Amino acid sequence: MTRDSKTPAPGGSPRLLTPSRRTFLKRSAAVGGMTMLAGAGVGEAMAAGDDNLPPNVPEWMKTLGSSVTAHPYGMPSQYEKNVIRRNVGWLTATEESSINFTPIHELDGIITPNGVCFERHHGGAPDIDPDQHRLMIHGLVDRPLIFTMSDLMRFPSVSRIHFIECPANGGMEWKGAQMDGVQFSHGMVHCCEWTGVKLSTLLAEVGLQKSAKWLLAEGADAAAMTRSIPLDKALDDVIVCYSQNGERIRVENGYPLRLLVPGWEGNVNVKWLRRIKVGDQPWHHREETSKYTDLMPNGIARQFTFVQEANSVITSPCPEKPMKFGKGFYEIRGLAWSGHGRIKKVDISTDGGNNWHTADLQTPVLSRALTRFRFPLQWDGRPMLLQSRAMDESGYVQPTIEALRAVRGLNSIYHKNSIHTWRVKPDGEVENVQIA
Amino acid sequence: MTRDSKTPAPGGSPRLLTPSRRTFLKRSAAVGGMTMLAGAGVGEAMAAGDDNLPPNVPEWMKTLGSSVTAHPYGMPSQYEKNVIRRNVGWLTATEESSINFTPIHELDGIITPNGVCFERHHGGAPDIDPDQHRLMIHGLVDRPLIFTMSDLMRFPSVSRIHFIECPANGGMEWKGAQMDGVQFSHGMVHCCEWTGVKLSTLLAEVGLQKSAKWLLAEGADAAAMTRSIPLDKALDDVIVCYSQNGERIRVENGYPLRLLVPGWEGNVNVKWLRRIKVGDQPWHHREETSKYTDLMPNGIARQFTFVQEANSVITSPCPEKPMKFGKGFYEIRGLAWSGHGRIKKVDISTDGGNNWHTADLQTPVLSRALTRFRFPLQWDGRPMLLQSRAMDESGYVQPTIEALRAVRGLNSIYHKNSIHTWRVKPDGEVENVQIA
Repeated sequence: MTRDSKTPAPGGSPRLLTPSRRTFLKRSAAVGGMTMLAGAGVGEAMAAGDDNLPPNVPEWMKTLGSSVTAHPYGMPSQYEKNVIRRNVGWLTATEESSINFTPIHELDGIITPNGVCFERHHGGAPDIDPDQHRLMIHGLVDRPLIFTMSDLMRFPSVSRIHFIECPANGGMEWKGAQMDGVQFSHGMVHCCEWTGVKLSTLLAEVGLQKSAKWLLAEGADAAAMTRSIPLDKALDDVIVCYSQNGERIRVENGYPLRLLVPGWEGNVNVKWLRRIKVGDQPWHHREETSKYTDLMPNGIARQFTFVQEANSVITSPCPEKPMKFGKGFYEIRGLAWSGHGRIKKVDISTDGGNNWHTADLQTPVLSRALTRFRFPLQWDGRPMLLQSRAMDESGYVQPTIEALRAVRGLNSIYHKNSIHTWRVKPDGEVENVQIA
Repeated sequence: MTRDSKTPAPGGSPRLLTPSRRTFLKRSAAVGGMTMLAGAGVGEAMAAGDDNLPPNVPEWMKTLGSSVTAHPYGMPSQYEKNVIRRNVGWLTATEESSINFTPIHELDGIITPNGVCFERHHGGAPDIDPDQHRLMIHGLVDRPLIFTMSDLMRFPSVSRIHFIECPANGGMEWKGAQMDGVQFSHGMVHCCEWTGVKLSTLLAEVGLQKSAKWLLAEGADAAAMTRSIPLDKALDDVIVCYSQNGERIRVENGYPLRLLVPGWEGNVNVKWLRRIKVGDQPWHHREETSKYTDLMPNGIARQFTFVQEANSVITSPCPEKPMKFGKGFYEIRGLAWSGHGRIKKVDISTDGGNNWHTADLQTPVLSRALTRFRFPLQWDGRPMLLQSRAMDESGYVQPTIEALRAVRGLNSIYHKNSIHTWRVKPDGEVENVQIA
């Protein structure tokens, strides 16, 4: 069955159709929750009656609202107080070396607002005075330099929209655990417009010596978090960032300075960046030996597996957002991303991967950025196994969990990017399941 | 002189050059504030000494930072507390029918964070319960309908990055007043990723009658703000939005529902949208007769001048961001936008418009979105008259203030999009000036 078919799918699976204006109108009118008015008698004047519905006047139209001086820096409506980052208490020993999750089930488009970008700390988020902050670049360089924030912000800058994903995103499910909702199964990801100085510009400033091959990036947090980064990536597209979605980086995302290593695992996008040492080999520090490596079935760990390969997930419906309107039209919505470049295609299945249909991609599709996909579904009320499958411009196709385990075994925590399944029940409830 | 020339400009004007790696390195090393380290002796181990500089250990590395449960919805660093919206007390009679301004001098890239998007209210910002909010579409339609928020969010949705600009942006300067800084001269603009339902989708749902030609959009604020919108625009690219930069629209920007009328003056992007009436002619309500019209020299007012034509401004330097490092390298940064489509070109002048040089545009350049431009400048410390000039894909070129006044006289408040001038003094201070 193709996306463009308007005939019901065989075998009793849900009907999928393109919502041409005519068919969408017809079907949604049949199933929607819209209230049909009395018709031509509805005039422009306000009438008495139910205060909750136009044309009547709700309470908030009868008094002045808040003034332009009320909130010099604004916050969401009080009715959105549940759209927040959440953590999982049992996941880590302390809340300072822990993680919380982006509420991706509540978000639209591709930009993640700064207030809810997931946090991952190894010693808590430091409250750094930017006037006191410095970046030192040293090691195998001709002119080791220390930069103030003012120095750095004078350099030619660039802005790019990129995702950052913790490589442990979904990792709790590697062996079969089922997180309670998409915020926890896939919420270690965000996508922002980052602004800063290309690292290649700063490395030209200090002058690389011929033997230079690797960098060590160090954060100014209590963990002094360090990661080794190969020089070719550093010279390609790495940015030393000072802004996130227009404003200065948030404290929990690295204020006042962080590395942005496009498409690579979150951990190497070192926050609170204070030092870059240039060397001729990797350092093999803690976060690239005992952590952030993938233990294979043969007992050998894959190391420096930097790239976050193509991944996707349906964010509506999901366990937090059931299909509560019964049979009828739903727009399936979700996110896809790849550390290798642009998302080329996202397919949707309603039957656990037996049949696939192409989703629409929100444009512009940007390299190494979240990509919003949407797919029109006419639900007949029968159970579904909803899946999304991303393909990137390199040709890489998001694998099944079986395919991933066949290669990497059952020891891994990091880099679980397999096709995810939501079971939709006849009452519209959505369960997180793994299917064989 | 071309952009690529590396020779000093004639006549003593500032030297402009392309910062090829070699020349930028040489020149910035000569003038930058960077601290040269002792050289090869700097090791990886932390040494005692000045606690403010690496490789020493700052205070915030000695204690745990904040945990992942500390801020479920995050806010900017305490050190960014001055990056806020500001209003001008004398501008309006009350703070409920007033405006505040985006701090564009503090922002980077093209996305405006929701917390600092300018506000313009006519009766204050109402605190609307989304469960009680309704949108009614009626008038010359086959099936007048009332939609709940849940109804609306089920429809096929789109996300687009667009600017919204108040047509009074800069209007205080029409007759020659000089606002104190770029926040006040150009800060009635923001740019967000908006998500919602195309208005054409909803109009298909209610069924337009043949005589339909105009819409009236009404807000659920105390002013019951209304504007007439021609049907062809409504069917083209207008979006009924529920999300802004990923999360639900902020209260002050129309929560839970607003119109997004890409490229058109902010006032028609009706906030707190509660009603759309379809008619066969415009309504000539208050905000399109006594306000938001342009009184011409002959005493006749231009009405329904919807499009925000091409505009641009340099945001660094500006009065709030002087050139405080003395002679040397600066990246000139600014914003350009056009309600007619994409920005095609931005030129920079340092001599009040006698000579022009092409700036770099941040990609992707999006239609009817803010576009960030950057230009490398080697300043010789002499006075400058800095200007930017935008051209859009329609071929329209941002005019001088003289050209604008020659056509529209001196009575206008709205649609002042003329080339703006900053006077840079030898001490680096920047003044807002108008030059003949």
